[in-house]
Amino acid sequence: MKFELEKAIEILAQTPATVTTLLSSLSEDWTKTGGDQARWEAFDVVGHYIHGEETDWIPRARIILAQGENLTFVPFDRVAQFERSKGKTLAELLETFAELRRKNIETLRSWNLTEEQLKLKGIHPELGEVDLEQLLATWVVHDLNHIRQIVEALARKYSENVGVWKEYLSILK
Amino acid sequence: MKFELEKAIEILAQTPATVTTLLSSLSEDWTKTGGDQARWEAFDVVGHYIHGEETDWIPRARIILAQGENLTFVPFDRVAQFERSKGKTLAELLETFAELRRKNIETLRSWNLTEEQLKLKGIHPELGEVDLEQLLATWVVHDLNHIRQIVEALARKYSENVGVWKEYLSILK
Repeated sequence: MKFELEKAIEILAQTPATVTTLLSSLSEDWTKTGGDQARWEAFDVVGHYIHGEETDWIPRARIILAQGENLTFVPFDRVAQFERSKGKTLAELLETFAELRRKNIETLRSWNLTEEQLKLKGIHPELGEVDLEQLLATWVVHDLNHIRQIVEALARKYSENVGVWKEYLSILK
Repeated sequence: MKFELEKAIEILAQTPATVTTLLSSLSEDWTKTGGDQARWEAFDVVGHYIHGEETDWIPRARIILAQGENLTFVPFDRVAQFERSKGKTLAELLETFAELRRKNIETLRSWNLTEEQLKLKGIHPELGEVDLEQLLATWVVHDLNHIRQIVEALARKYSENVGVWKEYLSILK
């Protein structure tokens, strides 16, 4: 599908509301962190979204748009939320995420990006040269990737309860 | 996690609202069917949820609860939606799904199931003996499985747009 900013924003705009609808009426048994960086629960994923809003997508877009001397992005800490979310409730995290995302979409829209700007380059510290359009498309897919991770974490709780049906449920594999 | 009916219902109750929040503000480019039974789009998944509400979960629970002569479930048609959703809009399907689910949860609650009833058996046409608790746990995981399928279908649209980031995005693999 051709990249169009407004269509990318359609996905970016729904994510906090979707994740809130998915999680906010669930008991903590479904969502609470286990503190295990190798096995994220829903709580951990929401903290990760927040850290991305603060340090990843818009800051990296700014580096690209500025086209300054150093085009290399600051490495992103993928497990920062295990410290940063401590003591917070899931409801607080969901609100923070929604507010940060709202502001970031506002910022993104305010840039009125041209086709030329979407082709400007930056340097990913591990992957090398990337452009702004790829960064924005990745933001979109990253949102979806972590909705997927949330539903996988929820499904895992019932991995034994389903009995022989496990064979049919690809999410449990 | 131990199966508790009220916690299972927490997941069952949010699914139509979550899927509606996820999809209802998206352009058709993201969601429309391609008519391909091997590659479901969001539209196809919502039709599949509807068919499950009508012919799978509650009808099978009734067979188990009745404990009649024939405990074998009617086979479920997993691709019925490719015919049945024809000519409908996604918004119509989302409304139908929400309404059917609301009624089915009402039915489920009205049974006031006991621990003994949850252990009653039925016969799956392919998998063999299953019990009511497993059927209900499978309903829950099936919901999550298809939210996962929806976000995978959406992410696929940008599988090339993300450039070298593809390597980091497990949803694209």
